[in-house]
Amino acid sequence: MAGEGDLKLLGLLVSPFVVRVRMALSMKGVSYEYIEQDVFNKSELLIRYNPVHQKVPVLIHHGKPICESLAIVEYVDEVWGGGVAPSILPADPYERAIARFWAAYIDDKLFPAWMGVLKAATEEEKAEKVSQTLAVLVHLEEAFAKCSDGKAFFGGDTIGYLDLALGCNLFWFKTLRKMFNVELIEEGRTPLLASWAQRFSEAAAVKDLVPNVDKAVEHAKKMRRVFVH
Amino acid sequence: MAGEGDLKLLGLLVSPFVVRVRMALSMKGVSYEYIEQDVFNKSELLIRYNPVHQKVPVLIHHGKPICESLAIVEYVDEVWGGGVAPSILPADPYERAIARFWAAYIDDKLFPAWMGVLKAATEEEKAEKVSQTLAVLVHLEEAFAKCSDGKAFFGGDTIGYLDLALGCNLFWFKTLRKMFNVELIEEGRTPLLASWAQRFSEAAAVKDLVPNVDKAVEHAKKMRRVFVH
Repeated sequence: MAGEGDLKLLGLLVSPFVVRVRMALSMKGVSYEYIEQDVFNKSELLIRYNPVHQKVPVLIHHGKPICESLAIVEYVDEVWGGGVAPSILPADPYERAIARFWAAYIDDKLFPAWMGVLKAATEEEKAEKVSQTLAVLVHLEEAFAKCSDGKAFFGGDTIGYLDLALGCNLFWFKTLRKMFNVELIEEGRTPLLASWAQRFSEAAAVKDLVPNVDKAVEHAKKMRRVFVH
Repeated sequence: MAGEGDLKLLGLLVSPFVVRVRMALSMKGVSYEYIEQDVFNKSELLIRYNPVHQKVPVLIHHGKPICESLAIVEYVDEVWGGGVAPSILPADPYERAIARFWAAYIDDKLFPAWMGVLKAATEEEKAEKVSQTLAVLVHLEEAFAKCSDGKAFFGGDTIGYLDLALGCNLFWFKTLRKMFNVELIEEGRTPLLASWAQRFSEAAAVKDLVPNVDKAVEHAKKMRRVFVH
């Protein structure tokens, strides 16, 4: 692991956005101090370093904070680029633009859809949010076909930006299956994503960072107590 | 102007996101074919090149589409980088990360807030959305103080990524003033942004691309007929 001296990450173990950043740091072999946050009782540290959103993840490098997980992943790729560490973003400008487009789509459409399943107050609302999530995943199945070009990952032969952007959500899909018996990525509906998800979960750089589903269930129940009335 | 052969932009003259991309292309001195779209009656071209969102802007380079205005601006900066054209994003990774953070903030918080003023169905709702917009602008005043480091623009001595990200919204602020008599950027409340906005509106690379406020008023009235009941 590259020693980075003054590198800290404010996180929450079950946040997909934090998992995304931890996976990026792991791909680069960068060591850092991880500081778990209580999002229901925000620390002075979190408020100081992310005063605008007061959200995790926050990467603090030599005392300077970087917020927003996709911006952090780009930062990590730029700062620890070159050498033996694999690139996260594609090198080609067009492929980079396409990766950024789909990453924004994942955060703007996929995340609120599955989070809607979790926060749904009624069965009808839950069914509607499941449908929304499935519709988004059908678009992502098409994206995979185009981006991977027949290879194992969105990024080609190895994990890249879009693999992290989508892959960090997968353990929440397992969590929703356990809680509500809903299957979001299925062989029959999105076969490419189903086999990609299997490969992603086994990839060396990321597999140890996938949170425990029971921990996510516990967090989800706490969220539902706070948000669902 | 650099001749780019096969470069087309699907746009809408009064869309801030389209204006942002046109300003980026102008900064690079790149020529392109501009194709105005009717967003109330989407063309086969728009649906083909942006099937996911069916929104402008879409930049089509050698027949391949790029969507999402911030991704397009990064693409333009990467493809037409180097040489005599000015850089749009900062060179330093930390400054890039900060610019990306605030650009996301502008699109996620500022745009929906002022668009809410436009679409408000009642005076109460309008007042609430004005307050939201002003609160966002106070954060952006602080961002300007930090990013500009005493210089003329977010990008330093010349216009950069964040100047485009925020500056493309300015003509809509004038439009809202004309329609509803609301003042969003004011000397008294956000003095740095007020003088920045003046400088931005006079900058050579962008001033000819600012849409006519009367056209924006006309478009806004059409939107209100469609969206406000």
